[in-house]
Formats: sequence, structure tokens, C-alpha cells
Amino acid sequence: MSKINTAPVGGTRDVLPLEVLRRDYVIATITRVYQSYGFEPLETPALERLDTLLGKYGEEGDQLIFRVLRRGQELRRALDDAPTENTLADAGLRYDLTVPLARVVAEYRHRLPRIFKRYQIQPVYRADRPAKGRYREFYQCDADVVGSPSQTVEAEVMGAVARILQELGFASPEQFVVRLNHRGILRGLMEVAGVPLALEGSALVAIDKLDKIGLDGVRRELDERGLDPAAATALLELMAAAPDENDAVLAWLGRALEPSEAGRQGVAELRTVMEYAAYGPAAAHVRVDPYLARGLSYYTGPIFEIEFPGLNGSGGGGGRYDNLIGMFSGQSVPACGFSLGLERILLLMEERELFPERLAGQPQALVTLGDESTTGASLELAQQLRAGGLRIDLYPDADGYGKQFKYATGRGIRYALLLGSRELEAGVVAAKDLDSGDQVDVALDEIVSWLSERV
Amino acid sequence: MSKINTAPVGGTRDVLPLEVLRRDYVIATITRVYQSYGFEPLETPALERLDTLLGKYGEEGDQLIFRVLRRGQELRRALDDAPTENTLADAGLRYDLTVPLARVVAEYRHRLPRIFKRYQIQPVYRADRPAKGRYREFYQCDADVVGSPSQTVEAEVMGAVARILQELGFASPEQFVVRLNHRGILRGLMEVAGVPLALEGSALVAIDKLDKIGLDGVRRELDERGLDPAAATALLELMAAAPDENDAVLAWLGRALEPSEAGRQGVAELRTVMEYAAYGPAAAHVRVDPYLARGLSYYTGPIFEIEFPGLNGSGGGGGRYDNLIGMFSGQSVPACGFSLGLERILLLMEERELFPERLAGQPQALVTLGDESTTGASLELAQQLRAGGLRIDLYPDADGYGKQFKYATGRGIRYALLLGSRELEAGVVAAKDLDSGDQVDVALDEIVSWLSERV
Repeated sequence: MSKINTAPVGGTRDVLPLEVLRRDYVIATITRVYQSYGFEPLETPALERLDTLLGKYGEEGDQLIFRVLRRGQELRRALDDAPTENTLADAGLRYDLTVPLARVVAEYRHRLPRIFKRYQIQPVYRADRPAKGRYREFYQCDADVVGSPSQTVEAEVMGAVARILQELGFASPEQFVVRLNHRGILRGLMEVAGVPLALEGSALVAIDKLDKIGLDGVRRELDERGLDPAAATALLELMAAAPDENDAVLAWLGRALEPSEAGRQGVAELRTVMEYAAYGPAAAHVRVDPYLARGLSYYTGPIFEIEFPGLNGSGGGGGRYDNLIGMFSGQSVPACGFSLGLERILLLMEERELFPERLAGQPQALVTLGDESTTGASLELAQQLRAGGLRIDLYPDADGYGKQFKYATGRGIRYALLLGSRELEAGVVAAKDLDSGDQVDVALDEIVSWLSERV
Repeated sequence: MSKINTAPVGGTRDVLPLEVLRRDYVIATITRVYQSYGFEPLETPALERLDTLLGKYGEEGDQLIFRVLRRGQELRRALDDAPTENTLADAGLRYDLTVPLARVVAEYRHRLPRIFKRYQIQPVYRADRPAKGRYREFYQCDADVVGSPSQTVEAEVMGAVARILQELGFASPEQFVVRLNHRGILRGLMEVAGVPLALEGSALVAIDKLDKIGLDGVRRELDERGLDPAAATALLELMAAAPDENDAVLAWLGRALEPSEAGRQGVAELRTVMEYAAYGPAAAHVRVDPYLARGLSYYTGPIFEIEFPGLNGSGGGGGRYDNLIGMFSGQSVPACGFSLGLERILLLMEERELFPERLAGQPQALVTLGDESTTGASLELAQQLRAGGLRIDLYPDADGYGKQFKYATGRGIRYALLLGSRELEAGVVAAKDLDSGDQVDVALDEIVSWLSERV
């Protein structure tokens, strides 16, 4: 028999128990906080109609969609007629959680609340070239508010995200920053600097690299992208002039963008967002950053992004996107949301040792097996402990105790409970602390409370 | 613009919020109980290599696998060379959770505990013709113990499943039965009746229909399937002779199957399973049923199935299957497990009104918005209540109160909290019970405890 490949498909992962418990811990925190903000859950199928997906993520996105082959008669017809990837497939795998949300809002608009606050935590699929930290199946954790143009929404979304990170152990502003900007401010800066609309996107791509390549690097990029030297100079002067502190930067923007209507509106809205956010958990973490640019074809108002100081890449981002949710219904629907990067957060939590030492879900004790004559008593003991609310593993075979203890230690179980003939006769359980090696006899009718006090 | 189809792909479903909360309630119960029995979680990718999946579920199963199209260069090569569904696709969607478990056991055998007790709750995908109650994406909730031949395993698996159903509200043996049989008993009955091995599977298919078609119907089927009339008569006499009560049926089987080695072993093992199960939650629910047959090419020892009396179909089933987990490693690995049918259970719980009236996760109050001058105060109130551990929705727009109350009622939120200029001046929150219509003023610094006592 040739060796069978049992590794997971390239770019995907098997998540082994300890790691699932860690994910569950983070997902439970995310869920709890989103719910505490009044969000309700949505789940959509992994399979979407191919024409729902195509054309929504740009040309590159279309190529990253996993396409699912037609079946039976339909497949045979497609094969007979100059087949292409689009005629052979009728469905694709979910690429993000926003297009499904837009589809759901169009399909069920009469059943959903006027203001639909939904969270959704599901894997998405992208046929990207696998690389370190880049997966073809990964979780997105989105929260969106559909149906209100109010800036309280931005404040609440930012508050929920900040609260999640705080509850996970990212406590101080040194541990995470919520960078905040506004589409209108970016527009305004371009107008004031004299960057033509056609070059705006290109200029913003260059500006977005400020952190990485510095002002000189941005200058060079702007030249290469064909920006008029005068406009480039004006833009760079604006960038160099921006103060750091939030109130100062808003005041500066108010003055600098006075000539631009988009800019004025952006500044006014950001002021309101800042005022509202001050009441919530994001307050100490927000940093107004007039050069933050993300998904510009997508966002229409405030935009924000989680930054972990000292690290590249973001922990997730979001903002207001008033033109997207209506794509299937043909109506304009105000919306604002956030997508949290689960994989990134898990990695950071591991590096910073933010996970609890013993995770909820792990067994709290192992009931060992002595011999066949005491198996029933051991089963009864396990049952009694579980009825007392404890998580109890039962070793199934009457192996030597050494082997049973080794199994417990390997699974991170601290207590082993022995109920052999000696213990049964004495009406006790021998409780062994596998961390310290200490062993004590505990009366059978006290074992539930004895163990409950220790775990 | 032509009408865009926004319905989910045929055979799949969008799960709207209330239904997700119900699912989450059931899944949380399943998870809690599996963990209390010492099971640990596993997650595997939705995508599996096509050759991992093919040939594992029979010919019909192969046709039900969703195949995922190759990409780029590989796709072009496949298209150029007499393409078929197997050359065009390199991956398929997870069809069940057992083949992935077998793959994981082979791939990580040196990292997994000697006895691997895993639960796994993930959707699986089958390109079945959609029908009422038959979906192309549905959850399986599996628990398996890999690595021990002990009958304590069967008892623990049955105990966990019974405990789950009890915690969900299926309390009495009238509400669910755990039918129990043994592969060896079926073998023994065939041997004793003189059914040749080659016709055993065929005869068992007929016998499995006893509940539906009665003894006469089974007789007719056996004839049609080419069974020797003498063997058919012997088999039917055995079936008619089987007593109902557990001890009686085991005693009867002990006598009737005395000539068959497989039968004797089956009876002995079932006696042990029954003895062990007596200590756990399945005790009152088990019914030994010597004619229960399921997945015969698969199971090698005890088999069991959840039956809801008065209803067709099963709520899930399982048993011992010692030859399957080793399929990738080439070793024989003892295993025993259970797969719970989530969709069936959800349906029954809805019919029998077993869900809590207000599900965990729903908002407990709506903080309304008065006007712009009090928006900050409302945001602060929401923040204060959330810090007190409550789930609070905030209405984002300063709409009329009637509209805000209607929104709350539509979302199943009982309390609306008003903080307008009058309330702010008086230092109170007006708390309105939307069920009764009653409204009272509560001091601002007492609102957290006031609401906590009521939800």
C-alpha cells in the first residue's frame, strides 16, 4: 500500500483540541461582548450561488473564489459545450461575510428589524497562495449595523471591539490602538493639495505606506504614480504638518480642510464619533489618523482599524459603507461594521501568554480504573461527580496506574481519583494531585465538594 | 436591472437570529455534556483532498460529494485532457466527521493521547436532492473514543447522549429510547437460522423494516431477496419469539445463540454494556433490540440508536467500529462513537416547545434615544448597564418613542429605558415594561440592580 497523504489540504488546518479550546475561549468572548451590545447572530451557508459572488471582490477576488463543480446532467452539458471555470461551476465558497449579509438583507427585508444589528462568526474561503499566517480557510468575526446613519453606530461598534480586546487581556492603549479616519477627510486632503480625483486612489495607496517607507518614500511613490510635483509637495507638507494629539489633529483638520465640503463634513462627523466614543471602552484607545486609508472603493464615512503598536498588519478594521448593502436590492442602505481578525489575535495572545492556564472545557479530574471488580464503582463515581457539575474523564481500561497517570498528565488533567478495593472497603477515594504528587484519602460522600473547591 | 436571486443555494439555509440562538443553545448543551464526559474538541477543514473522500461512502456516496474545481494552470491542464469530474476537481467538501477523524488519527498519532476522546460539531455537505428536512449543508455532532476496546466506552457514550437529551428536556423513557444491539447478535441470529453469510446483509435490510412492514412484509421481502424458505421461516420464528423486556431478551438470546460464537460474544458484551450503563443517565432509556441493524459494513460490536417513540426516523446513532479509524494508517484501531442528529432534535424541540422563552443572548433592555442633547447620557447609561453584565441594545436614531418601542418589541426586548431631558433633570431613568405597559422612574444609580433583578 502506498503512503496515503493524511495532511490537511494545503492552506487549511486541522485544529487539535487545545487549540480549539483556545479558539472557543476567544469566540465566546467575542460573542458575549457583541451580544452585550445588542447584536444578534446570523449564519449563512458556506455555498453561495456563483453569480452572487462574482464581481463583488474585484478581478483578483474573482480568481480567489473556490468554485464548486456542477453535478449530474448539468455537469455533462457543461462539459460538452466548451467548458470554462464559470460554466462548470454553479456555486462557490463564501469569500467574506459582507456579501452574504447584503444578500440576506435583500431576501428577508420584511422579516428583519428596521435596524439590523448582526454579528456573524464563520469561516471564509479564499484560494490564495498559502503562506505563513495566510490560510485558505479562516474565521471572520463581523459585527454590522444596517439601517441607521447615526454616528452612535460608529461609537458602539468601536466600543464593542475595544471591549472584546480588553476582555481578552489587551488592557492598555499601549497594547492596542483604534486608528480612526474618515473618507471625507482623505477626499478633503486630496482636494486641498490639488490631487485630481482620478489619481486619488493611487495617491492614497502611496500615503498608506507612510509608516513603512517614510515621507521620502511616499514622495518617490507619488512621483512614480504620475502625480504633479506641486500636488505631491502640497500633500507631503500637509502630512508633515498634522499634529499627533486627537483634539489638535481635529482642530488642524478643521482649519486645513475648510475649503473642501467633503473635508468639512468628515471633520464634523469624526468630532461626533469622538464625542460619542468617549462614553465607551474605546475612549482611551482611539487615535485620529488623517492618513489611515482602507478599502476606498467600499467605505463612505468613518473608517477605523485596530493596530497593535510595534507590529505590522492590523487586527481588523471597519467603517461606514452606505452603498454596499443595497447591491442586491437596488436601494441605498446605510451600514457600518467591523471585521475582527481572529487568527491574528490568537497568535498575539499566544505570544503574550494571555490564555488562561487551564481552559474552560478541559477535564478537571480523571477517574482511574482499578480492576474489573471495581469498574462499576468507578463508573458510579464519575457519574456522581458529573452530576455535581464537574468535568470528569474516565479511563476505560484497567491498565497500571502509572500509565493512567501519564495519560492524565498528557491531557493536562491535574487530579487522578483512585477507587480500588482498598478504597472501596474504607469508603474513600484516593485523590492524587499529579502536579505535586500528593495523595490523600477523601470520604466518598465528600469527594464532589473536595474536588469542586480545588478546580 | 433584472431581479437578482437572493435566496440561499437550493438545499442550504440562511439561519436568522432567533434560530441561531436556538441552535447555539442546543450546541452549548451538547458541548457542555460531551466535555463533562472528558471529550475534547476537534475541528477539521471543510475542504478535504478528493482522494481522502472518494471510495469511503460507497458508490452513491461518491456521487454526493461536492467537488471543488482546480484553479489556474492545473485547471487549464485538466480542461485540455478529456476532463471528468474527478480530474477537474482536486478537493471536495467534508461529507461526514468520521473520515476526517480517521485522517487526523493517522496524521497526528504521535501527538494525540493514547485514548483519544474527541467531539466535533461542524457542518457537513452532501449533494443530495433537496427535500423537506433533507439539507445539503447540515450539522453533525459526533463524539468518538478512539483507542480502547473496553465496554465502559459504550456505556459512557450512551450515557453522554442520554444526558444531552435529558438536559434539553427529553426527560422520560417515553420521550426517547436508546435502542441497543450488537453486530455479533445479528450474525448469531443469521447463523442459527441458517442464513448464508452472502445473504446476511440482504436479510438484515428486510429485517430492519420490521417496524414498518410487519412480520408478513419481512417474509415477503426475504423471499424476494432469494432467501431459502426454511431459513426465512427459522428467522421469522426467532423474531416472533424474542421477548420485550431487557433481562428477558438477553436471557433468551443467551439460549437461542448458544450455538454461535459470534452470538455468544455479542450477548456477553451487551450484558457488560448494560451493567456499566446502569450507573449512568442512559439506564432508564436503554431497550435491547436484537433486530436493530445499522451500517453493517461499518460496525463491529455494539450498535445503538436514538428513537423518539411514535416518530419515524432516528435522532442519531452509533456503535463500535474497530476497522475504520485505521483505514489511513493501515493499523486496526478500536473505536466507538455516536453521531447526534441536530436538525431532527431542533425540529422536535420546537414542536414540543422545549426552548426557553427568552434565549440566552437576546438583549435584555433597549436604551432609547431622546434627542441630540441627551444622546451622550444614553450612551453612558448603556455603557453602565453593560459594565454591570447586562445585554443592552441602544437605539441609534432619535426617532419617536413609539417607533423605538415597536423595534424593541419586534426584537423580543421586554424593557425600554428612557433618558430624556425630564429624566436627566430628575436623576432617573424611566423604565417601561413593554409586556405590561407599566412605566416607573428608577434612580440612575439604581438602574443596574433594578434591571438585573428583572431579567
